[in-house]
Amino acid sequence: MTNDEVKAWMKEVRERIDHALETYLDEKLLEARQISPSSLELVEGIRSLTLRGGKRLRPIVVEAALRAVAPERPGVDATTVGASLEVLQSYLLIHDDWMDQDDERRGGPAVHAMYRSDHGDHEANALAILAGDLASAYALELMLRAPFGEERDEAMQLFVRIQKEVFYGQHLDLTQDPDVARMHDLKTGSYTVRGPLLLGATLGGASDEQKEALIAYGTPLGEAFQLADDMIGTFGDAEHTGKPGDDLVHRKRNGLVALAEQRLEGEARAELATLMRSRGTPDPERVAKVTQAMIDEGIKSEVEARVKTLLAESEAALDGVGFDPGGTEILRFVARKLALRTI
Amino acid sequence: MTNDEVKAWMKEVRERIDHALETYLDEKLLEARQISPSSLELVEGIRSLTLRGGKRLRPIVVEAALRAVAPERPGVDATTVGASLEVLQSYLLIHDDWMDQDDERRGGPAVHAMYRSDHGDHEANALAILAGDLASAYALELMLRAPFGEERDEAMQLFVRIQKEVFYGQHLDLTQDPDVARMHDLKTGSYTVRGPLLLGATLGGASDEQKEALIAYGTPLGEAFQLADDMIGTFGDAEHTGKPGDDLVHRKRNGLVALAEQRLEGEARAELATLMRSRGTPDPERVAKVTQAMIDEGIKSEVEARVKTLLAESEAALDGVGFDPGGTEILRFVARKLALRTI
Repeated sequence: MTNDEVKAWMKEVRERIDHALETYLDEKLLEARQISPSSLELVEGIRSLTLRGGKRLRPIVVEAALRAVAPERPGVDATTVGASLEVLQSYLLIHDDWMDQDDERRGGPAVHAMYRSDHGDHEANALAILAGDLASAYALELMLRAPFGEERDEAMQLFVRIQKEVFYGQHLDLTQDPDVARMHDLKTGSYTVRGPLLLGATLGGASDEQKEALIAYGTPLGEAFQLADDMIGTFGDAEHTGKPGDDLVHRKRNGLVALAEQRLEGEARAELATLMRSRGTPDPERVAKVTQAMIDEGIKSEVEARVKTLLAESEAALDGVGFDPGGTEILRFVARKLALRTI
Repeated sequence: MTNDEVKAWMKEVRERIDHALETYLDEKLLEARQISPSSLELVEGIRSLTLRGGKRLRPIVVEAALRAVAPERPGVDATTVGASLEVLQSYLLIHDDWMDQDDERRGGPAVHAMYRSDHGDHEANALAILAGDLASAYALELMLRAPFGEERDEAMQLFVRIQKEVFYGQHLDLTQDPDVARMHDLKTGSYTVRGPLLLGATLGGASDEQKEALIAYGTPLGEAFQLADDMIGTFGDAEHTGKPGDDLVHRKRNGLVALAEQRLEGEARAELATLMRSRGTPDPERVAKVTQAMIDEGIKSEVEARVKTLLAESEAALDGVGFDPGGTEILRFVARKLALRTI
């Protein structure tokens, strides 16, 4: 497959998922009208956030894995699995945005911020938590509709495991736990990469060997994806979006910052410590100094090299387990996009 | 079965559920130690609330229905279904208590209040929401372990439906929707009575006719249960606990208050309206006046009569559908306990 063919395939997946989500959420509006017409605002909050975009990354990962393992099961449709993961994502985003007090999401208001136009602050927050809870039930409903057949039980165990891991990961994030690697493995590795890969593989009736290969492909990829995110958060993304790095400005202890806390010495170490302890808008000069010290210390180039190594490890795992060539091309493409954060 | 035999049966169910919950939550502590040892506080919050008591009402309803429909399936064990509903209840209580800003639950601190000893206010609230989310995944995990066999899909649909209905009901409650009857049907009728009955019936392989009979038994019972609660909330429970009614003090628009808003006239109507609009601790004399006006208007005696009618309707539904006599006795006993709120 050429890159253009892979891109066209991704576009088709996205459009199909968007359509499935719209159809499902229309059904939920009708259902709410029957069960409790006054409660439409809950469904509308979920609907607004879910249909407002999102890259449909997890559905793409599910479908890529399915295609790699089961070219011979052309009738199997992964749309409902993908839609379920997108609604699960809405659930998590609704709760996370309130936890992090982020009022914006996907170019519009976060759900708790939406409810503030008709409700007092606490009630708006409570309604957002409730909308998240309802979205969790919706995600389960969609997952139960997916055509797993014999592998239903295995798939449901994965669905539970993904949720448990993402909540543990969110706990580490909320409490600013120093074990940043574990936090990322749980939030990104498991929830964004390994979980969707294994759901797709299970849907396709993959062999244990193929599942192992997908785990070996996904685990370094999760780390690369997160490191690339930390690189952009720290040093900005001049190449692709022109976005400046603002993790240091927000004193977010990403993986690179955690590394810098161990590595920097002398004045640079003190500057970083002062910055991380400060409140309010930090001195831009201090941020610039710390950023430069991290580059001088070799942290940037080291992490760039690490991302390359991880990507190579990830791609190497795809060989020799009988994956479909087209599916393998897609997985390679997805890996590069994830490791460069251009998806 | 004599009343004493039914009581001994209920005691056995409670002890078995308590034991299953303790075993499961011990397993979750071990699992958290492996996945993310720093996150133990999430599991401990769930564990503390779940094991701190509770009447295990929903498991009792599940097992009563199972016993009524399936005396010939002696091998079927409803323990895991009951334990799942108790963990689901923990999830809902953790979120509700934060929504309602209630700091106490089951004779101890609510989960968000527990976390305040180690975290700031917002972080404690966020961790409680996260603990609730984790409990939701646990409830699903337990439900997936229940021995539904052929009826697994039907059971999972019920599990989703119960959750959707309780969230819609909670929405009506949070926004003080005037449709109080619907709110109670969703929160109590569906979640506390019909849902557990149908899960028990499904586990026992009940016929459609038996399921219809259980719905006919459960629907009036849900209303009676709620009315009895509103009676205690409004007029107190001199007979059983000596607890005074405090719904009017907290300006909680329960079903009786909603009825009074329609029925009272003249001065009493104005007193009630002033009371419901007031802030802070209301004038005890005004509360007493409104309470007496409700009695004089006949609201108390009318609701007492209504509870009796509902109970009779409920019990009548148990005849002629081939339920096991012992199971029927248990269902009758449970009905009386629920309608008198002595369970």
